[in-house]
Amino acid sequence: METLRIGVIGLGRLGRIHTTNLIQHVPEAKVKTLADPRVDETKKWAERLGDFEITANWQDVLEDPEIDAVVIASPTTLHGEMLKAAVKAKKHVFMEKPLAHNLETARELYKNLKDTGVKIQIAFNRRFDHNFRKVKDFIDSGELGEIHLIRTTSRDPHLPDIEFVKKSGGIFFDFMIHEFDTARFLTGSEVVEVYAGGSVLLDPRIGEAGDFDTAYAILKMENGAICAIDVSRKTTYGYDQRVEVFGSKGSARAENDRETNVIVSTEAAVCSDKPLYYFPQRYMQSFANEIRAFVESVLEDKDVSAGVEAGYYSILVARAADISAKENRSVKIAELI
Amino acid sequence: METLRIGVIGLGRLGRIHTTNLIQHVPEAKVKTLADPRVDETKKWAERLGDFEITANWQDVLEDPEIDAVVIASPTTLHGEMLKAAVKAKKHVFMEKPLAHNLETARELYKNLKDTGVKIQIAFNRRFDHNFRKVKDFIDSGELGEIHLIRTTSRDPHLPDIEFVKKSGGIFFDFMIHEFDTARFLTGSEVVEVYAGGSVLLDPRIGEAGDFDTAYAILKMENGAICAIDVSRKTTYGYDQRVEVFGSKGSARAENDRETNVIVSTEAAVCSDKPLYYFPQRYMQSFANEIRAFVESVLEDKDVSAGVEAGYYSILVARAADISAKENRSVKIAELI
Amino acid sequence: METLRIGVIGLGRLGRIHTTNLIQHVPEAKVKTLADPRVDETKKWAERLGDFEITANWQDVLEDPEIDAVVIASPTTLHGEMLKAAVKAKKHVFMEKPLAHNLETARELYKNLKDTGVKIQIAFNRRFDHNFRKVKDFIDSGELGEIHLIRTTSRDPHLPDIEFVKKSGGIFFDFMIHEFDTARFLTGSEVVEVYAGGSVLLDPRIGEAGDFDTAYAILKMENGAICAIDVSRKTTYGYDQRVEVFGSKGSARAENDRETNVIVSTEAAVCSDKPLYYFPQRYMQSFANEIRAFVESVLEDKDVSAGVEAGYYSILVARAADISAKENRSVKIAELI
Amino acid sequence: METLRIGVIGLGRLGRIHTTNLIQHVPEAKVKTLADPRVDETKKWAERLGDFEITANWQDVLEDPEIDAVVIASPTTLHGEMLKAAVKAKKHVFMEKPLAHNLETARELYKNLKDTGVKIQIAFNRRFDHNFRKVKDFIDSGELGEIHLIRTTSRDPHLPDIEFVKKSGGIFFDFMIHEFDTARFLTGSEVVEVYAGGSVLLDPRIGEAGDFDTAYAILKMENGAICAIDVSRKTTYGYDQRVEVFGSKGSARAENDRETNVIVSTEAAVCSDKPLYYFPQRYMQSFANEIRAFVESVLEDKDVSAGVEAGYYSILVARAADISAKENRSVKIAELI
Repeated sequence: METLRIGVIGLGRLGRIHTTNLIQHVPEAKVKTLADPRVDETKKWAERLGDFEITANWQDVLEDPEIDAVVIASPTTLHGEMLKAAVKAKKHVFMEKPLAHNLETARELYKNLKDTGVKIQIAFNRRFDHNFRKVKDFIDSGELGEIHLIRTTSRDPHLPDIEFVKKSGGIFFDFMIHEFDTARFLTGSEVVEVYAGGSVLLDPRIGEAGDFDTAYAILKMENGAICAIDVSRKTTYGYDQRVEVFGSKGSARAENDRETNVIVSTEAAVCSDKPLYYFPQRYMQSFANEIRAFVESVLEDKDVSAGVEAGYYSILVARAADISAKENRSVKIAELI
Repeated sequence: METLRIGVIGLGRLGRIHTTNLIQHVPEAKVKTLADPRVDETKKWAERLGDFEITANWQDVLEDPEIDAVVIASPTTLHGEMLKAAVKAKKHVFMEKPLAHNLETARELYKNLKDTGVKIQIAFNRRFDHNFRKVKDFIDSGELGEIHLIRTTSRDPHLPDIEFVKKSGGIFFDFMIHEFDTARFLTGSEVVEVYAGGSVLLDPRIGEAGDFDTAYAILKMENGAICAIDVSRKTTYGYDQRVEVFGSKGSARAENDRETNVIVSTEAAVCSDKPLYYFPQRYMQSFANEIRAFVESVLEDKDVSAGVEAGYYSILVARAADISAKENRSVKIAELI
Repeated sequence: METLRIGVIGLGRLGRIHTTNLIQHVPEAKVKTLADPRVDETKKWAERLGDFEITANWQDVLEDPEIDAVVIASPTTLHGEMLKAAVKAKKHVFMEKPLAHNLETARELYKNLKDTGVKIQIAFNRRFDHNFRKVKDFIDSGELGEIHLIRTTSRDPHLPDIEFVKKSGGIFFDFMIHEFDTARFLTGSEVVEVYAGGSVLLDPRIGEAGDFDTAYAILKMENGAICAIDVSRKTTYGYDQRVEVFGSKGSARAENDRETNVIVSTEAAVCSDKPLYYFPQRYMQSFANEIRAFVESVLEDKDVSAGVEAGYYSILVARAADISAKENRSVKIAELI
Repeated sequence: METLRIGVIGLGRLGRIHTTNLIQHVPEAKVKTLADPRVDETKKWAERLGDFEITANWQDVLEDPEIDAVVIASPTTLHGEMLKAAVKAKKHVFMEKPLAHNLETARELYKNLKDTGVKIQIAFNRRFDHNFRKVKDFIDSGELGEIHLIRTTSRDPHLPDIEFVKKSGGIFFDFMIHEFDTARFLTGSEVVEVYAGGSVLLDPRIGEAGDFDTAYAILKMENGAICAIDVSRKTTYGYDQRVEVFGSKGSARAENDRETNVIVSTEAAVCSDKPLYYFPQRYMQSFANEIRAFVESVLEDKDVSAGVEAGYYSILVARAADISAKENRSVKIAELI
C-alpha cells in the first residue's frame, strides 16, 4: 500500500483538526470521505480543502471498499459501537480518547480487540508532543537511570461550562486521564495502586455536580516509581502543562512553551511571555505528529504507540482514582480487573 | 536591653554556624559562654573568634545571671530537658529542630511552654531563606489569591550514613519535617489529614532499617489547599530544593540557586551550573537571617516566626505520615491530638 | 478584489517555500502560474500541491491579465530587470532580498519605483518573526521609552561554500544586510553613519576571497540611538539570532528559539536544547507571515512593511560598511546618496 | 611570614569595604593601622570591628616597620605619590583603580614600578567575580576554542551626580575602564586598536560637561578577536552587567545575578527578580575574593592577577577611546606608547 485512503467520522473540532492535518502534513494519506450528521456545515467547512464524499451516515464509510482506515472523532458514547463495527469491517482505526465512557465498555473492547489484525490507535496526543517526547527520549537513552519519581501538572486556562462538567464523567475520567496515560508512557510500567482526591476551590457549582475542580493523585507503579499528579481547572496565566522525571542518574523537566522568547526588563520586573493559551496552541504540532504516526504505522506495519490497551488502562486508573476519592482510601488496580 | 548576652549549648556543626553568625552578622548580640563536653576542641575552634567562657557543663549557662538567651544545638534527645530548664531559668531560647525526638515529648513541651514569658524559636531556617520568603511575600501580598496547591521537592546530594538512618527516626521525622513546616508557613493554615508513603529505590539497607529513601505525602490543609510533597535521599546533580504555590490569581515558584549565572553553548548542549551542592551552601544566608531575627524578637519584644507550636505541629504531621505509610491509609491529625 | 491571483518567478528553495505557504496558509491567494527555466523539475515538485500553469518564460506571467501579483525569487542579478518589468505590467510584487546586486541598480530602482501605484514588498522576513515583532511591539507601545542602544547578533551554524562566498558580494551585502534592516525597522530611524570591519578567523580561503568571516558594525541612527552588530559565519551550537533593545524605560531581548523546553539535570550539568539549527527551522513561521502580510496589503490596500525604500537603504548601509572596513574609517551615509 | 600586617590608607566607602573584608574573611591578615584625615569619623566607624591604630597621616603607615602591606583607597589624584612612596618603603600594595588620573602618570608608574620586589595589585574586582571568573575558566579550559568575539554591557542603575561627572575624567576613564580590563583579562591578549564614541541621551548636562552618558567601543585585539562594548549611565531595572565570549568551539555568557530565583506567573506576565541593584550588591563577594587573593599572593609569593601593567594598559585604552570619540576615527594603541 502506498497511499492510505481514509474516512473521517465526526467533524467536530478534533475531527476537523485531524482532517486538516492529514491533508496538509501527511502526503501518504488521502481523505476520501467525511461522515457527519451535519452535512451542510461539513460541506461548507470542507470546501476550501478539496473534494470529498460527504455523508450523514457513518456506516457508509465502513462499507466503502476503497477506504482503508477511519478516524473516529464522534461523541464518546458512540465510540464502542463504531470501533467494533470498524474492526469488523477490517478498517484501521485512529480514535479520539477516551476509549469508552465507562470502565465496563472499555474492558469489553480491550478484551475483544487487543488481537485483531487491524491497527487501533487512541489519540493520546501528548505522547507525540515535542517536549514530552524529549523527556521520554532521555529516559529511553538511560541518561536518567532508573525512574524514581514523576511529577505532572495540568492546569486549564479557564473553567469548563458547568453543563459540560455534569456530563464529563468527572475530573479523573475527563481531565486527569491524560496524566494517567503519561505515567504509563514515561515509566513503561503499569499502575498498581492509586490514592486520589480533590477540592472544590474554584466554583461551588462543580461541587454541586459531584465533581472536584482541583485534584491530585499518587500513582504507585509496578517498578516502584511514584507519580505525583496535581491538576486544576483554571489558571490566570494560560495552559500550564509540565512534567518532571527524576531518576537515579538525573532529572528531566518539560517546561511550558511560550509564543516568543522575548524578555523585557523594566522598573517593575523582568518578564517573559505567559505559557501558550490552551491546547490548540500548545499541542498543535502533536496533533499532526500523532496522525502522521498512525498513517506510518499502517503503511509500514509497525506497532502504534497508544493502542486499545492504553485506552483501557487509563480508564482503569481513572476509575480507581474515582473510588479512592469517594472512599478516601488507597485503591489497588487489581481490585478492578 | 540593648545587647543580648548569649550562651551557646552544643558546639557541633550547627552550634558553630550559629555562633559564627552571631559574632559576624548580629552586632546586637554578644556571645559570652560556649558549653560543650568537648572542651578542648571547642576552645581550639573558638580561639580565632574572640574571648569566651568555655564550660563542659550546660547548666552553668542557665545559672549565669549575665546571660539573657541560649542557643540549644545539642543532640535531639536532650532537647526536652534543656528547653524546660532554660525556660525555668527565664532564658530566651533559640533551639535547633526538631523540638523533640518523639511526639509525646513534643506534645508535653507544647502544652507546658506555649505561654511562658520567654521567646522560644525553633530553627526552621527555610522560613528565612530568600527564595522561600519571597514566595511567602507573594502570598501575603495577595498577588496569588487564595492558595489551592503547593508542591515541594527536597532532594539531598548524597545518601546519609546508614548508621545515621537507623537513629534518625525515619524519613518523615528527619527529612520531610521541613516540608511539613513549610506547608504550614506558606499557607498559614493547619494540616488536617495526611496520606504518605515511600519506596526503597536507592539503597536496600535503608529498607532493612525500616525506612524509605524516596517518599511522598499529600497534606490536606484546613483551608482546603492541598500540598503535594516528594523527597529523595540522593540526586546526582546537587541539592534540589524547590517549592511552587498555585493560587486563584497566580503561581509562584522558587527555583534552585546556582553558583554562577553563566550559560555555556557548545556543540553538545546549552548548559548552566548545577544547583548549589548542599545545605551549608544553599541555606548559608538563611542561618544568619534566622538567628538575627531571634535576637531582634527578644530585643524588640516581637513574636518569633517559628515557635514551640511550629516544633510541635511539624512532629504531629510527621507522626501522621509515619502511620499513614505503615498502614497505607489516610490519617487525620485529629486522631493524634 | 477577493482573491489575489499570483505567479511565482523562480522556484528555487525560497520560491518553493513561498509557493507552499501561499497554498497552505493564505486562503485569499491563488497561485496560478509557476515560472522557472527548470520546467520538468518544477512540474514534478508542484504535482502534489495542485494544478498550476508551468512555464519556462517569466514574461508569460507578466503578460497574463488574470495574474494580479508576482513573487520574484530569481537570482539577484535578475531582480532589477524583473522588478521594472513587473511594475510596468502593473503587477504587485513580492521580491526576495536583496533589492539588487549593487548600489547603483538599487538606487535607480528606488528613485524610479518609490511612487508607483503597485505594492512592492522586499522579503525582509525577520520583520515578521514572532520574537523580533514582539520586541518591536514593546518599542511601539512606549514601554521601553526612547531607544538608546540596540545590539544584534547573527551567527550561522556552518560555513558557506567558498564558491558562494566569492559571488556573494561580501559579508555586509549578503549577511549583515538583515541587521541593517532590523536596525531601521526597530528604531524607525535612518542610519546616518557606519563604522564596520571584520576578521578572518574561521577559514583563510574567505580572506583570500577578499571577505571576512567575523564582522562587526556600529550604526549611528538619526535619532541618536546606537546599534552594535556582530556576526559570525559559523557556530558549533546552531543558529544564533538575538537582538536586544535598550531604552530610557527598559530593555527587551529576543532570545533564541529551541526545539523543546526540556531541562535535563545530571551529574555533568543542567542543560537545555541548543537553538534551532538554521533559518528554515528558525524563521519558518516568519516566511508564512510575510507572504500573508503581502497578500493582505494588496487586498486591503495597506502599506507594506518593507518596501523598495527598505531594500535600497539596507544596501546603502551595506555599501557604507564595506567602505568603512576597507578604509578603516567611519563613513557617513550622506557621502553615498 | 604567616600573617600579613596591613595598614589601610583612605577610609571612604571602598576603604571600609576592604577593611571589613580583611577582618571577616581573611584570617591570614591583621589590620594594624587605619590612616585617614577624618580621624574621628574613622574611629567611630572602626570601634565595633576591633582595636586599630588610627592616624591622620598616611606616611605613618609607611614608616611603621611592623606593617607589611598597604591598601590604598584614597582619591585618585593621590594614587601616584602614595604608590611610589609605598614601594620605596618596601610595602606590598593593594590599590584601588584607576592606577592614575592621567595617562602620563600611569605610564611613568608603569615604567618605574613594573619590576620592583613588592607585589602591587590594582583592584579590578571583576576579575574575581564568580560569573566573570567562570567565563574565564571556560576560556582557559579550551572549551570555547579560540576567542573570536566578546560582547560586554555595563549599565548603572542611576545617573551619577553631575559634579562627579565633571571631575570623573569622562565615561571612558571612569566607567568603561572596567570593560577594557575585562577584554584583556578574558582574551589574554592586548588591545591594538580602538574605535569609540557616544551619545548624550539621558541628561543634557552631561553633554555640557563634555562627556557622554551612552557609549560604545570596538576593540581589536592582537590575536584577532573583536570586543564590542556598550555602556549606559542609567537603567530603570538595576545594575546590568553581562559579558558574552564567542569562540570557535562555543560561547559562554554571564547573565545578571538576582536576589531570588522566584518566578511568579499571573494574568499579566511571567516575571522574575530584577538584577541586583548596584555594585555593592552585585560585586560584594568579588571584593572579598580580590583582597584575599592579594594577601595570598604576598604570603605565598605568587603573581597578582591585575598588576601595575593592568592599571597602565586600561588607561592607555581609555585614552585611545577618548581620542577616537573626539576625532571620530580609529586609534591605534601604538600611537600612544
